[in-house]
Amino acid sequence: MQVTMVDDKIVDAEKLDKVHFDRAMFFGDGVYEVIRSYNGKIFALEDHMLRFSNSLKAIGITAVTAEQVQEKVLKAFEVANLANAKIYFHVTRGSGPRKHEWDNNLKPNFFLTIDELGDFTAVKNKGIAVSTYPDLRWKRCDIKSLNLLANVIAKQDAAEKGYQEAILVDDRGFITEGAGSAFFAIFDGKIHVTPLGHEILPSVTRKYVLKAADNIGMETIQKQFTPDQAAQADELFIAVTTKDIVPVVKFDSQTIKNGNPGRYTKLLIEEFKVFTK
Amino acid sequence: MQVTMVDDKIVDAEKLDKVHFDRAMFFGDGVYEVIRSYNGKIFALEDHMLRFSNSLKAIGITAVTAEQVQEKVLKAFEVANLANAKIYFHVTRGSGPRKHEWDNNLKPNFFLTIDELGDFTAVKNKGIAVSTYPDLRWKRCDIKSLNLLANVIAKQDAAEKGYQEAILVDDRGFITEGAGSAFFAIFDGKIHVTPLGHEILPSVTRKYVLKAADNIGMETIQKQFTPDQAAQADELFIAVTTKDIVPVVKFDSQTIKNGNPGRYTKLLIEEFKVFTK
Repeated sequence: MQVTMVDDKIVDAEKLDKVHFDRAMFFGDGVYEVIRSYNGKIFALEDHMLRFSNSLKAIGITAVTAEQVQEKVLKAFEVANLANAKIYFHVTRGSGPRKHEWDNNLKPNFFLTIDELGDFTAVKNKGIAVSTYPDLRWKRCDIKSLNLLANVIAKQDAAEKGYQEAILVDDRGFITEGAGSAFFAIFDGKIHVTPLGHEILPSVTRKYVLKAADNIGMETIQKQFTPDQAAQADELFIAVTTKDIVPVVKFDSQTIKNGNPGRYTKLLIEEFKVFTK
Repeated sequence: MQVTMVDDKIVDAEKLDKVHFDRAMFFGDGVYEVIRSYNGKIFALEDHMLRFSNSLKAIGITAVTAEQVQEKVLKAFEVANLANAKIYFHVTRGSGPRKHEWDNNLKPNFFLTIDELGDFTAVKNKGIAVSTYPDLRWKRCDIKSLNLLANVIAKQDAAEKGYQEAILVDDRGFITEGAGSAFFAIFDGKIHVTPLGHEILPSVTRKYVLKAADNIGMETIQKQFTPDQAAQADELFIAVTTKDIVPVVKFDSQTIKNGNPGRYTKLLIEEFKVFTK
């Protein structure tokens, strides 16, 4: 005998949507991706699906392949018929009674939403303000999992202070990345960014930023830096799937140089357009 | 315009159960408790509700109080009418479009299940085997949140190797706690356990174990110890809400002493019964 209650009502568990018993509800036991299209064409689909495949593998979801998921994504994208779409999807290990260890016969659940993206020219011209927050996340941030409470708390802290992104700082006092973005500094014409590892997400946009940098002859230094160093940088920017490169003009209370998007950042934004045409 | 897809179907988001858009699905943005009853009486309800209140506060869910939740729990427990019940419940921040920062007008979602607990005499008489796994969790394990993927992965590793619990080991090589339990060692008649802090859950059963120890005149040393030390302990046990004290007779490949539950552990199990009568 089992009693199930949802909000204020005792309910029949058999009649509930199976998502109530989704392991994502109990444990955050799933992985996700965010992809976008530019002018009707999905950007870097292969990179995203490769990362998604790696995420599935890393947490041991084997009953669905990235190829099967891609088919659904493409079908939904066709239905959406949007030029500039934001595609979110997650796959969870499945629904079942709550217990940590899993049954191998669980059927993964798939969920997707597609929304229209606006135009980000204004924010790119103006730049954003970011604030720092301790990096409270787990030790496998390279997995794009549904365990995002540390990111949520950091982003909320930034939002409440009037900042547009939280930049996470690890125990040793070094910046890892943004709560929902990769983070870059430019010193003397060179791009500085945290090296890939378990501590950060292998950001697809990051990869293309570094390609763009290479294309325009900018050197990249993959090494962590501190908030104090960031505050003194020549230029700062974040990279995120939905908006690609966004200049950062304020870091905590510090205005970066003259408070306008920097010269190199603007060059990178232009160069990035080559990929998204 | 928005497209929503669930499994293989394009669906009308308006007609979906709101749990599909629960922030627990997207972020694990919620907190939970597991409580049990012994012979028709809920054990340590006040302790659990105090911890739950602290969890709500810690992640900034303010639109519901622990008192309101307790009312629902008691109502469901009455309906269940079980002598030995396992009560699971979670409160999430609410349902809404996916974005990290939250709207203050979100309405928290509540979900509860009650199941009948079996008799654990056999496992207590025999003891269990535990294996170690790296503690990959975030830096606020004192919050009983729905971000439990690291626990899931550790427990699955143990289960696949034929062990009944995973004991987590931090970066410095010290044991923190079990993936779903508190962990104790006895050396020379003294109980050793990880001190409370952000690294472990303030286990309610742990609190009563230490009370029981005090009642029978056992000294407690709140200090972390290593897997090597644990393997050489006189006795080991875990503490978990559903089963209270369970002896550990095997630690990784090492049999603990003669492979039977230890004398002090059995005394503690007896003394714990005073609380649950």
